[in-house]
Amino acid sequence: MSITKQTVINTYLPDQPLPGTHAEAFAPSNIALCKYWGKRDVELNLPINGSLSISLGELGSRTEITESETGADQVYLNHELQAEDNSFARKVIAFINLFRGELNQPVCVKTINNIPTAAGLASSASGFAALTLAINDFYNLGLSDDKLSAFARMGSGSASRSIYQGFVEWHKGVRDDGMDSCAERLDITWPGFRIGLLKVATGAKKVDSRSGMQRTVESADLYQSWPQQAANDLATIKRAIADRDLELLGQTAEQNALSMHATMIASWPPLLYWQPESVAAMHRVWELRALGVPVYLTMDAGPNLKLLFHSEYEAQVRNAFPELLDLDIVAPFG
Amino acid sequence: MSITKQTVINTYLPDQPLPGTHAEAFAPSNIALCKYWGKRDVELNLPINGSLSISLGELGSRTEITESETGADQVYLNHELQAEDNSFARKVIAFINLFRGELNQPVCVKTINNIPTAAGLASSASGFAALTLAINDFYNLGLSDDKLSAFARMGSGSASRSIYQGFVEWHKGVRDDGMDSCAERLDITWPGFRIGLLKVATGAKKVDSRSGMQRTVESADLYQSWPQQAANDLATIKRAIADRDLELLGQTAEQNALSMHATMIASWPPLLYWQPESVAAMHRVWELRALGVPVYLTMDAGPNLKLLFHSEYEAQVRNAFPELLDLDIVAPFG
Repeated sequence: MSITKQTVINTYLPDQPLPGTHAEAFAPSNIALCKYWGKRDVELNLPINGSLSISLGELGSRTEITESETGADQVYLNHELQAEDNSFARKVIAFINLFRGELNQPVCVKTINNIPTAAGLASSASGFAALTLAINDFYNLGLSDDKLSAFARMGSGSASRSIYQGFVEWHKGVRDDGMDSCAERLDITWPGFRIGLLKVATGAKKVDSRSGMQRTVESADLYQSWPQQAANDLATIKRAIADRDLELLGQTAEQNALSMHATMIASWPPLLYWQPESVAAMHRVWELRALGVPVYLTMDAGPNLKLLFHSEYEAQVRNAFPELLDLDIVAPFG
Repeated sequence: MSITKQTVINTYLPDQPLPGTHAEAFAPSNIALCKYWGKRDVELNLPINGSLSISLGELGSRTEITESETGADQVYLNHELQAEDNSFARKVIAFINLFRGELNQPVCVKTINNIPTAAGLASSASGFAALTLAINDFYNLGLSDDKLSAFARMGSGSASRSIYQGFVEWHKGVRDDGMDSCAERLDITWPGFRIGLLKVATGAKKVDSRSGMQRTVESADLYQSWPQQAANDLATIKRAIADRDLELLGQTAEQNALSMHATMIASWPPLLYWQPESVAAMHRVWELRALGVPVYLTMDAGPNLKLLFHSEYEAQVRNAFPELLDLDIVAPFG
């Protein structure tokens, strides 16, 4: 039997928080170079494997919490008031409830995602990270970064990584309450590192990654080899980052992402997030690489590609992928 | 150190064969429902896992051997004389050399593949099976079916299965000389069983399956789980055939094929035989299935799909895939 989120939070939080007045926080989106795929605990979002990501600087979510003036909780997303039974609003309020306990103070939560729609990025990681940071500030909880990361993880696994900028490792942890399953920023920058956000398809009906990873764990025989591969890839990627070796990083990150997709494809029913346009773009990346341009791809639980390359090759990448706008090439270190 | 093909053949063949006069043999193409992927011995084409296929009745290769009238070996493919250094001609002559030893009798070998180009089927399985049968007849070797299958396997792994019609199991075997790695016909027919050959792409540059499977074995961590999955799938498929359970057969064959592709996708460099059109067709199959039509897909080391269904649903399948011609729907049991 899994420990509940509420039990964990109660253990680590001070008594009933005092009412707050105003808080605002920002958290970046992140793109995993070594993917999180599979949970050892579904309630607490504890992962089977460790993962590593790069945060996207100024692309992410900004969340503001104030006291509600209407006497009821209110949730805004991108300036629009969300209905009480809206799924986003319910998730936000359920998460806040974990922290405010019996406190009778309605709040107004406003979230703005500045992630370009064209990027095809999930916003739950930055969203839950920003919300956790704002909650910490609003209720004056004084939580350490480790605890902020662990609590954000309870909202969405990869939110644990969005607490930090730069290269971030999420330790899988071994504890039942998951408090050692939190992220850590790697103390390294890599100014030439670039990420291209390539939107190749939209509107495809998709299985959310939460149920996708469960289906994989339960039905794909090939998943058995994933945890060990992920552990090896994580170590290799850390070494590649330390050495600023883009080729080693790119190869390992690409094989890691494709192996994650391979476990989905081997599931039943088959889980194929790729659209025809995804495969066309994949072949284009490989053709460009065959021409000598060191560009690598990674993909998450969706049809879009993210390209990894060094600024030195930005012109060639732009030339081969003219659909990449300025906005869609991210320099994570500014 | 692997035993050579020649050593194995010499062990099981009578002394030097006598010159022959004329032989003709046909062997069907086959489509694996449980795939052969990975070798434990590259020289002898000994597989890591057992496999199971359905032969395609009258679709396949017909091979005729006669004494050459020119004093030199001659090889024809589909009525065209092949140059001596042509890769097809070299493979055929090298295979015949294994059996004729020092015999000084030039031969003329004529092979005709009646597999519709549109089907996107490999012809090496039926080709080497027909050649082995013709050699047995031409030199009057009197080989048993087991030996014919094992010798055909030395030409091309899946040729071991093309010795037989119907459902055929290729036992992986355990012997170093591979003589127990031969196929066996299952004693069962299934008149309503249908296969649709769906050509979705051509001309794509491809890695041949021989090197593809080597790359997978050597570079894909996920391949570690493949042999056990294949063993389980093989047992399930045999049960499904015995019970004439198309749903169980289709599900297992589809997951098996996609898992094989998953191991390729997880290789380095990535091995993706799929084209955009392949993925479009895969989604179409799944949409049709979501509408209640029990149709399943299988794919080999190429971009094309093969559809598995029961004759009861042939109208719906034809309606959803109008590109299927009569010729591209095979009724393996007539």
